[in-house]
Amino acid sequence: MSEAGRYDLLFESVRIGPVTAPNRFYQVPHCTGMGYARPQTLAAMRGMKAEGGWGVVCTEYCSIDQSSDDTPYPYATIWDEDDVRNLSLMADAVHEHGALAGLELWHGGSYVSNLLTRAPTLGVRSMPSRTDPVQSMPMDRSDIRALRASHRAAALRARDAGFDVVYVYPTHGYLLAEFLSRSLNTRTDEYGGSLENRARLVRELIEETCEAVGDRCAVAVRMSADGHGENHLDADEARDLIGMLGPLPDLWDLVVAEYDDEMGSSRFTREGALEESVAYVRALTGKPVVSVGRFTSPDTMLSQVRRGVVDFVGAARPSIADPFLPTKVREGRGEDIRECIGCNICYAGNTRGAPIRCTQNPTMGEEWRRGWHPERIDAAGEGTVLIVGAGPAGLEAAHVLGRRGFTVSLADKAGEPGGRVTRESRLPGLAEWARVRDYRLGQFTRLPNVSLYLGSEMSAADVAEFGADHVLIATGARWRRDGTGRWHQAPVPSLDVAGVLTPDDIMEGTVADGRIVLFDDDHYYMGPVLAEQLVASGARVTYVTTEGRAGSWSHATQELVPTQRRLIALGVEIVVSKAVSGFDGEAATLDCVYSDGQSRIAADAIVLVTSREPEDSLYHALKRDRALTGTLHRIGDCGQPSIIAAAVYSGHKAGRELGPGTAPPSLRDRVVVVPA
Amino acid sequence: MSEAGRYDLLFESVRIGPVTAPNRFYQVPHCTGMGYARPQTLAAMRGMKAEGGWGVVCTEYCSIDQSSDDTPYPYATIWDEDDVRNLSLMADAVHEHGALAGLELWHGGSYVSNLLTRAPTLGVRSMPSRTDPVQSMPMDRSDIRALRASHRAAALRARDAGFDVVYVYPTHGYLLAEFLSRSLNTRTDEYGGSLENRARLVRELIEETCEAVGDRCAVAVRMSADGHGENHLDADEARDLIGMLGPLPDLWDLVVAEYDDEMGSSRFTREGALEESVAYVRALTGKPVVSVGRFTSPDTMLSQVRRGVVDFVGAARPSIADPFLPTKVREGRGEDIRECIGCNICYAGNTRGAPIRCTQNPTMGEEWRRGWHPERIDAAGEGTVLIVGAGPAGLEAAHVLGRRGFTVSLADKAGEPGGRVTRESRLPGLAEWARVRDYRLGQFTRLPNVSLYLGSEMSAADVAEFGADHVLIATGARWRRDGTGRWHQAPVPSLDVAGVLTPDDIMEGTVADGRIVLFDDDHYYMGPVLAEQLVASGARVTYVTTEGRAGSWSHATQELVPTQRRLIALGVEIVVSKAVSGFDGEAATLDCVYSDGQSRIAADAIVLVTSREPEDSLYHALKRDRALTGTLHRIGDCGQPSIIAAAVYSGHKAGRELGPGTAPPSLRDRVVVVPA
Repeated sequence: MSEAGRYDLLFESVRIGPVTAPNRFYQVPHCTGMGYARPQTLAAMRGMKAEGGWGVVCTEYCSIDQSSDDTPYPYATIWDEDDVRNLSLMADAVHEHGALAGLELWHGGSYVSNLLTRAPTLGVRSMPSRTDPVQSMPMDRSDIRALRASHRAAALRARDAGFDVVYVYPTHGYLLAEFLSRSLNTRTDEYGGSLENRARLVRELIEETCEAVGDRCAVAVRMSADGHGENHLDADEARDLIGMLGPLPDLWDLVVAEYDDEMGSSRFTREGALEESVAYVRALTGKPVVSVGRFTSPDTMLSQVRRGVVDFVGAARPSIADPFLPTKVREGRGEDIRECIGCNICYAGNTRGAPIRCTQNPTMGEEWRRGWHPERIDAAGEGTVLIVGAGPAGLEAAHVLGRRGFTVSLADKAGEPGGRVTRESRLPGLAEWARVRDYRLGQFTRLPNVSLYLGSEMSAADVAEFGADHVLIATGARWRRDGTGRWHQAPVPSLDVAGVLTPDDIMEGTVADGRIVLFDDDHYYMGPVLAEQLVASGARVTYVTTEGRAGSWSHATQELVPTQRRLIALGVEIVVSKAVSGFDGEAATLDCVYSDGQSRIAADAIVLVTSREPEDSLYHALKRDRALTGTLHRIGDCGQPSIIAAAVYSGHKAGRELGPGTAPPSLRDRVVVVPA
Repeated sequence: MSEAGRYDLLFESVRIGPVTAPNRFYQVPHCTGMGYARPQTLAAMRGMKAEGGWGVVCTEYCSIDQSSDDTPYPYATIWDEDDVRNLSLMADAVHEHGALAGLELWHGGSYVSNLLTRAPTLGVRSMPSRTDPVQSMPMDRSDIRALRASHRAAALRARDAGFDVVYVYPTHGYLLAEFLSRSLNTRTDEYGGSLENRARLVRELIEETCEAVGDRCAVAVRMSADGHGENHLDADEARDLIGMLGPLPDLWDLVVAEYDDEMGSSRFTREGALEESVAYVRALTGKPVVSVGRFTSPDTMLSQVRRGVVDFVGAARPSIADPFLPTKVREGRGEDIRECIGCNICYAGNTRGAPIRCTQNPTMGEEWRRGWHPERIDAAGEGTVLIVGAGPAGLEAAHVLGRRGFTVSLADKAGEPGGRVTRESRLPGLAEWARVRDYRLGQFTRLPNVSLYLGSEMSAADVAEFGADHVLIATGARWRRDGTGRWHQAPVPSLDVAGVLTPDDIMEGTVADGRIVLFDDDHYYMGPVLAEQLVASGARVTYVTTEGRAGSWSHATQELVPTQRRLIALGVEIVVSKAVSGFDGEAATLDCVYSDGQSRIAADAIVLVTSREPEDSLYHALKRDRALTGTLHRIGDCGQPSIIAAAVYSGHKAGRELGPGTAPPSLRDRVVVVPA
């Protein structure tokens, strides 16, 4: 095969029941933090993926009726004609680019809490919800009949909204998974007992969905290929189940029992981790199969299709990081792919109730709200720009401004580009984060108007003398050494002693061994990752946090459980609900955060992961001196220390908006009451 | 004064700057879980309070612009003309009943995360947000100028939307409180240093709001009368500040430093707890004063006004539990007041992103969505109803059905009414919860068509023989003794031994002393409250939870911190991230929830607070036998074990909907895209 046609296999059309996908790139259902409340935000985002070449583009989990309400999480709904109208926006946007639109029908069962609808939650038996003090109502036969009717009606509405693929969804712990479970399903009627009985409801829903919409829509089943865990549905039973139901639907969308693998961040999970578990299904069922694996390499995708593992290359995160991934593969522009770094900040959109964000793709979620396109920037610009600092904000701003036509000089005092991204990517598990830097550097090679100057520290006088039309200060932030953070809201004098280290010290090569007390008042990844690093360099680490778990915010990125597991496996002692309030060279003082209790713990050094201070002295000097003739802005951590996604976004926005004119405000999907 | 005129003082009109309140009942700003996204839900709810006699009805915290975004919490916004349109719905609904409408302008400062708008958060200096990995951008002079302009523009929009009272809000830890703080405000410009400098921005905003809208609107300031804590603004400085700014606004709305007092649940805080801290302000400022105290007694209200503590009786929770509280006082119907029980489940609406609920008032939040009125039920009914179980669901259903005209027989096998409410109200701190029972029993006295039969256990045959047109089964739920819950999803054989107790055992009088291991896999109040009870009866308690804190869900009701404090003060040892997996009469086995780690801990008995089993055997027997001639329903915990608020709601809904016809579906405030 010629190099040009190397990936042709990925661009074959594939029949799925009554419909045909234009290629093998398949965006599986994934949550977006948009859901039913933000239909315009959602439609534009999904439409962008179709424009970028994804052959099938699906919704997130879409509730069939008011008994399945996942508030406060932004789930989709297909409850009524208003939902049909709103979701048809998405289907139309996807169809506009020749792709198929899929909709995942969903019932949350006992897992949800129905905080909005206040309807009773339903379960195979009465069980507590995931989070709230609510238990489900055990479904009797009439409830099951009502559920089937409701599911069928929802399938018809999905068809009416224009969707081409309609899902039945018996996994991920929701209602149908309860029925399949050996331990949860204790029913004595025809829906309990044998696998066949436990699968009865799933079979009925598949058959009834086929009967209702199968003439026009493909019916897909999203299922775990290796079950739901030993006590629920083991791998053998899952195989039996898929064998039993195999021929019924038009497509199998396969996940695995271990959600931490399916959805694992790059700290914990490698690319393509599902293959071993899902590979058997295609031959067993004779139906087209899709599965995921955070694929960013076209060769891995090609290999999985060629070897018959899957018919479709499934993706959620890679399609978020680069909606144009398929187009780039087709055009032989693999080097232009913005590869997912596996940080899972996208998932935090769902957990935190806000539209999805992406570290690599700052336009994600902004397609409708700001009219941003991931590959095009219409506004040309001219003039010279000096950017001080080649971290994530500076690199992204340089990239955008370069594409707009500005003459860009990007200076960094360090001998290598990337700023915090480069430093942090050397910590345990964060190697893929360097892609944030590498993608942008790769793009520079085709932008002759962007110049990178390393080892170039710039004073205020240097900047003024440079004489650029626009100056962007992107000098980042430094971790504080004085304890100031969430708990201590002012510097702590008893921490102002030798032997107090910061994350910057460790990243810059300070080797700490012996007994280390790490105080995490930041609550995201830095504390746990540094603890790993310290253990690797021989330290005995006690991890102290004001919260109840290590890196508590990482629940939002689905990393909380693997984080605890890893720290425990490394022998790190986790001390919760305490703050480090002092250190004397031999011991750290710990304060109970709820009482006057105090204790001491032996330590040779302490590491403070508390908060950061913007490195904004250059910005303020320039502002004070008024020696600049052009405009002056601060971007990234220099303005607001935050996550890398925020720094990239800040650089992108500054890059888009530099020059004359005012950016229009961000739109909101919201109710506007029309006066009677 | 005659008895009839006893409360006349509370119904005097009171001038506030350019406007006049019709009486002294003042609903202070309180969050609702509705915010900008649910304008119709919100307007109907606020309007109902005005209908019920509240003389002033305010919004929740209302953001002035996109730099203050509290996503995922449902805050209000007054960012643009669409907001003016939506909020005018509320102002109109309030005005319709002759009340004044107030709007609380708000900027979250460093506290928020701007997850929706992605604008930089702003702070007096750079500080971490309350929750997310985001720090604020330190405001420079131009940022302060922009904020002032934005605040002024928002005040003008508030006026245009029809509001009569506009707030400046320098407390509760938000932006203006940062400026006031000694420890947080480290500025060296004219906004930092002396109290006068730190108060400069507050003063400017008050003056500029008065200048902008003061001709038409009253300007209120919500402030803590005793400061923001030692390191921020101590009580002396707060007094100086209020002295300094006292004459500027038209009204002072006073809170206190300790949010756990201001917003304390009845477990931790008594009625009227703020008086001592706020009493000085009225004399000092010469301006009308409002403050809160979870007042439900008209005599306490009268006393505070008569003694000159306040001019207005402020309320949030009492106005939620009874929107018609003022009318009932005016009409001398004090015994009809549905008194707030201080459970704080209303607050969970905000924390969990859903419209506010109330244990006492099941119509709260349903005024628009279901067209429910707290005092009126239009649909008359006839026929006989048998309700089995006089817990919260049964009592509420009987109350509603009685008012609709049904002939209601309410039977309970116990010798006293109230079910779980009665049992739980005897636990430490929960005495006020008995009001759920007492309000409904009190209403029965005027409903000759409702009969209560205690000590009446009913078999399926008894129920069938009774021959009612409608049967409601409200037999509640029992705590499981086999360990099943969130962590153990099936019965645990190694827990099936003597010495295993449940919450029901303790509530029914089993005295456990010695060494007790309490396993809380429920995560709300029951575990911590039982621990208190056990300590009181002489036990040494080890509290084991799968979560990171004791009663972790009670963060939603603002009880997390006082819960930890109380348990620690009682000497309860809290063991986190562990599950109890066995007991052999001498020791409990604890499993680490993240690893294979296991440990043993000496115990004479264990208490399992895991999940509940519906007591639905009567329901199922009746369903199976098909011996009933009328309709059959299960309500409350018998259908779905949940919180008391859910049981009352379930009984209320069943009461409203019984009889012919179908209830209309609940409306949703949501975007509906109009096709182009």
